[in-house]
Amino acid sequence: MFNSFGNILKLTTFGESHGTAIGGIIDGFPAGLKVNFKEIQEELNRRKPGQSKIVTQRKEPDTVEFLSGIFKGITTGTSIGFIIKNTNQKSKDYSHNTDVYRPSHADFTYDKKYGIRDYKGGGRTSARETANWVVAGALAKQLISDININAFTSSVGDILINKPYQELDFSKIENNIVRCPDEKSAEKMISKIKEIKKLGDTIGGTITCVVQNIPVGLGEPIFNKLHAELGKAMLSINAVKGFEFGSGFSGTKMKGSEHNDIFSENGTTKTNLSGGIQGGISNGMDIHFRVAFKPVATIMQNQTTINSKGEITNIDGKGRHDPCVVPRAVPIVEAMTALVLADFWLINKTRKL
Amino acid sequence: MFNSFGNILKLTTFGESHGTAIGGIIDGFPAGLKVNFKEIQEELNRRKPGQSKIVTQRKEPDTVEFLSGIFKGITTGTSIGFIIKNTNQKSKDYSHNTDVYRPSHADFTYDKKYGIRDYKGGGRTSARETANWVVAGALAKQLISDININAFTSSVGDILINKPYQELDFSKIENNIVRCPDEKSAEKMISKIKEIKKLGDTIGGTITCVVQNIPVGLGEPIFNKLHAELGKAMLSINAVKGFEFGSGFSGTKMKGSEHNDIFSENGTTKTNLSGGIQGGISNGMDIHFRVAFKPVATIMQNQTTINSKGEITNIDGKGRHDPCVVPRAVPIVEAMTALVLADFWLINKTRKL
Amino acid sequence: MFNSFGNILKLTTFGESHGTAIGGIIDGFPAGLKVNFKEIQEELNRRKPGQSKIVTQRKEPDTVEFLSGIFKGITTGTSIGFIIKNTNQKSKDYSHNTDVYRPSHADFTYDKKYGIRDYKGGGRTSARETANWVVAGALAKQLISDININAFTSSVGDILINKPYQELDFSKIENNIVRCPDEKSAEKMISKIKEIKKLGDTIGGTITCVVQNIPVGLGEPIFNKLHAELGKAMLSINAVKGFEFGSGFSGTKMKGSEHNDIFSENGTTKTNLSGGIQGGISNGMDIHFRVAFKPVATIMQNQTTINSKGEITNIDGKGRHDPCVVPRAVPIVEAMTALVLADFWLINKTRKL
Amino acid sequence: MFNSFGNILKLTTFGESHGTAIGGIIDGFPAGLKVNFKEIQEELNRRKPGQSKIVTQRKEPDTVEFLSGIFKGITTGTSIGFIIKNTNQKSKDYSHNTDVYRPSHADFTYDKKYGIRDYKGGGRTSARETANWVVAGALAKQLISDININAFTSSVGDILINKPYQELDFSKIENNIVRCPDEKSAEKMISKIKEIKKLGDTIGGTITCVVQNIPVGLGEPIFNKLHAELGKAMLSINAVKGFEFGSGFSGTKMKGSEHNDIFSENGTTKTNLSGGIQGGISNGMDIHFRVAFKPVATIMQNQTTINSKGEITNIDGKGRHDPCVVPRAVPIVEAMTALVLADFWLINKTRKL
Repeated sequence: MFNSFGNILKLTTFGESHGTAIGGIIDGFPAGLKVNFKEIQEELNRRKPGQSKIVTQRKEPDTVEFLSGIFKGITTGTSIGFIIKNTNQKSKDYSHNTDVYRPSHADFTYDKKYGIRDYKGGGRTSARETANWVVAGALAKQLISDININAFTSSVGDILINKPYQELDFSKIENNIVRCPDEKSAEKMISKIKEIKKLGDTIGGTITCVVQNIPVGLGEPIFNKLHAELGKAMLSINAVKGFEFGSGFSGTKMKGSEHNDIFSENGTTKTNLSGGIQGGISNGMDIHFRVAFKPVATIMQNQTTINSKGEITNIDGKGRHDPCVVPRAVPIVEAMTALVLADFWLINKTRKL
Repeated sequence: MFNSFGNILKLTTFGESHGTAIGGIIDGFPAGLKVNFKEIQEELNRRKPGQSKIVTQRKEPDTVEFLSGIFKGITTGTSIGFIIKNTNQKSKDYSHNTDVYRPSHADFTYDKKYGIRDYKGGGRTSARETANWVVAGALAKQLISDININAFTSSVGDILINKPYQELDFSKIENNIVRCPDEKSAEKMISKIKEIKKLGDTIGGTITCVVQNIPVGLGEPIFNKLHAELGKAMLSINAVKGFEFGSGFSGTKMKGSEHNDIFSENGTTKTNLSGGIQGGISNGMDIHFRVAFKPVATIMQNQTTINSKGEITNIDGKGRHDPCVVPRAVPIVEAMTALVLADFWLINKTRKL
Repeated sequence: MFNSFGNILKLTTFGESHGTAIGGIIDGFPAGLKVNFKEIQEELNRRKPGQSKIVTQRKEPDTVEFLSGIFKGITTGTSIGFIIKNTNQKSKDYSHNTDVYRPSHADFTYDKKYGIRDYKGGGRTSARETANWVVAGALAKQLISDININAFTSSVGDILINKPYQELDFSKIENNIVRCPDEKSAEKMISKIKEIKKLGDTIGGTITCVVQNIPVGLGEPIFNKLHAELGKAMLSINAVKGFEFGSGFSGTKMKGSEHNDIFSENGTTKTNLSGGIQGGISNGMDIHFRVAFKPVATIMQNQTTINSKGEITNIDGKGRHDPCVVPRAVPIVEAMTALVLADFWLINKTRKL
Repeated sequence: MFNSFGNILKLTTFGESHGTAIGGIIDGFPAGLKVNFKEIQEELNRRKPGQSKIVTQRKEPDTVEFLSGIFKGITTGTSIGFIIKNTNQKSKDYSHNTDVYRPSHADFTYDKKYGIRDYKGGGRTSARETANWVVAGALAKQLISDININAFTSSVGDILINKPYQELDFSKIENNIVRCPDEKSAEKMISKIKEIKKLGDTIGGTITCVVQNIPVGLGEPIFNKLHAELGKAMLSINAVKGFEFGSGFSGTKMKGSEHNDIFSENGTTKTNLSGGIQGGISNGMDIHFRVAFKPVATIMQNQTTINSKGEITNIDGKGRHDPCVVPRAVPIVEAMTALVLADFWLINKTRKL
């Protein structure tokens, strides 16, 4: 519990935003994989701050150092330890926050729960933690390299792609800084974020993730259903408020006769309102789901709040923060998806004689 | 993994729809609770088939028998074993289904994954399993009896309650058979379900759950966030396609300056778009979330489908099924919520010196 | 934790000695095994009371009923629930014990830990629980049927077999009621137990277990070493006080030059002081270990003790108890060994690409 | 599984002998402990190489660096990450071993299991890993500082302390380099080890551990019995071949009437053959157990062995190794004991209303 994710393939992490380093241990990774280190770093680069004008302007190289579990470039089956050094520890920036509870942050809940809180840069609650997840997810991707995982920004505020994902070209996701494969929508989203940023405000959005070329049989009933684990994984990401797969919330308005996915002779289905999962198990069709991100709580505006004594005080937005977390969350969604799928892929090797 | 749920308080279950009995083991339940058996049976009665005209007309008493872990009416700290006998095993009803893959059921995925499948009444995939969860959840409720958990039907198809939950009277939830505390909406929902049933069709809907009087501090970052575990719990329920808490998907369209919950001096917040959870930890405000249920896949209509040889065949809807699963799912949502909260309540006893 | 054993293949149990039934859930068992029910019942018969003159004279049929997870005689991959009804619930026998702490039993510790205790027949602490383990172990044996697991009584009190196990014929283990394959030692052991029984006393002993035809590679460093899990499994059995494998405690007196097992060209070793395990992983040689059982605490003699108020009182041995637990523990040792090995066998399917 | 130990308080580790660093993550540690860093380093110093003439002459400072989870010297309840840099990576020393299977090492089993093996200094199988355990154990000791844990060398080869532990003065354990509180035995042990070292050979021994001032109620039946977890913990230590507690193997020769521990009015027992544990739960008496260590497999002599192709070859002992592992294992035994007890101490907070 607490800081571990997964069953056989398990990631355990540590690290505060302003400590020496963050890092993790990947356990249960099978022996024999030739690691592509460049791809791992590229995934980290997709997540890192300072990569474009619509994300936080902090500069952090986010370079991962592997400390164990890989010998001559090949995984050995032992635990893979890694760290990412924190190079941008401007603790001074946060000195004014030591005793103030920022609205809609975890300052209040951490203080009440633990009686102590690392107030520098959010401490353990910082989304910097997700860099660890991207490392582990990038390795997981290499383990299940036949499976294609593509996440993209599907909405920013009220600007959304008005097309089914089948009409999108996933190779275009990285063509723009908002990571939206529909160019026209991308432009609007970028404008929206720039405008919001000027106001010192932030905006929410959604990410859609599509998993293709997935084998039938991944996922474990009753309590490790594939979509339940994916949901848990997504809801673990900072700022996420919702998860739906297949027909999702809109499916609640449908009739069974409309919603049922009729089989073709080859075992595929003519529609895919099930979202590639039936009874918690992948059926070989595309898995597709949608993740809701709230607007970032840190805004560059003055807000009224309280301190630990319950006194009313004011807080000014300072520092360099994301006006919209969605573009940088795209690789995080993919990483967590890869972790879930790789874990189930390993588990599945044990489920049938 | 597989058939267990929870960390310290752990439910492990077994049972097929048409076996002798289903049942489970509740582990980690603390010693010293005087069990109210009547309340447990009442929760089961809320879930059981045949309770009203808008649910399946199968008749099953769903009587739980506790086999261990309770001595003279008090929990002993040892594992609590229980069974619910299956009294309604009309296996003949399903003989025509032995080799047919029902659309949007798990027949196909189970067969491919395991190479074998208990085709009687859905076997392990039957929602009958959730009776086990209601037993465990009813016990969990008694463990955290200060916390109030109220779930209710918030929409059926496109009929939804058009009020914030604060304007609803939860004591009216059980006043009608659809379990909607808003009487006018309830009437419409019941009519809708009756109409759908006549067509031999089914309809989806949503359940809203509100948790009140919850202590600050439940939930564990990083990978056991309170909302992530609630989400996983809800997504484990049959037919669920989505989960959102607090502002949910609608929060993605908001600005940070609108979405932030400003503190009052006493540590409560003036709004509650956070849904009672910040950084994965309860903040003492109401927890509220919404669960999406698709329409039941079994319809009383003729459908084209395939069999295990990949041959096209037809399937007729037979038997007694729910036209809308939502009313009977209300106690299931509450039960799973109680399990999650009771587990975190126990964990929380270990998190601070 | 608590009432579960295993990682992928996991047994969770419940049951008090004098409740309606004991039972368990076997999770993670792969689909596709044709179950030999007769073999399972035979293993239970080896453990059951009343089977010979040197064990307790209680009569209990110990018939297992499988409730789920097996369809048409074949495992389905879903959880396997089972119960064993308690048919011999002479609760009256124990009425004099309700408030007395029997020496070297768990009455005192349970009362202090939980504040409540089922005093009938030892409640949850009764070795009756191990019947559940034998059921699960018998199934596990069928999963890894190529591996041979033979346990036998190697000593009773100071009577021990004075031969290396290689000189014993395991097919003779069941030829006598003490389960010792060396006939001369067996006779002495039986006489010893009968003599002890006449005194109203009890006696300890050891069981040796030998695992043959085991593949190389079972066991997981660092914290799931094969011998560490076997040790934990054995130490879970009632009355066990010690565990050693390979050279064990006698190896502590040896020099490295004597103790090292030199390889032959085919990868086997000329000696086997390692006990078939190196670095926590099976090396293909026989695994052999020894388990120490203390004398049963319940004796047919008058003993001074205290009650829950700390008052000195007397306790008379009553009821029907084992003068030596070792003969009936032989199938339990095998069952727990099988569970450990089957779990590692499944895990091993995930450890190498 | 694999590289994690513990339930609520969980240690997960990584690291090869000759990588950049080893390290670990301690999860579930409660918030609010003021950490004594000096004591942690002192425990590491007790384990480190080069500390005396009877241990390996390698020089490694073994300095621990905490990377997270501690803020202003106080634990925050978040995961505690730490590393210990490897400063003594003489990889050249091992170049001759790349393809040779050292007798009674894990080279053969790792190669067969994983298909790849880090051959430098034993890779993951090196006892260097136990430095991680000492760090975590030293923190655990501070969490349960009322409980006294003392381990000591109780035998080297056939030289053993001929006194019950009650006659020993634990404050003398650190007075000599073999960590034996009985000075006369200590001298003999030291001479023995020096003599063995001259021969280029190694010798086994035992460690006794005594836990005092322990509360009643630690330990969890059925499968987390206190002694079963202690046994597993000890059997996880490199070179351990056996574990016994209380009367241990010698108890197998006793009668029940001799072995039963009779209560005094205050709930203590007049004897303590139970070793402080009854039914898997501490009864408040001293816990005492004994751990068997085989002679180190690396000897400074020429041995015949095989390589990965199954060819006979020779291996010369090289490098700087321990002639007897026992003195340096004393702090490791204490560390693992502390981890087990601290975990149960936390769990126990959840077991009774």
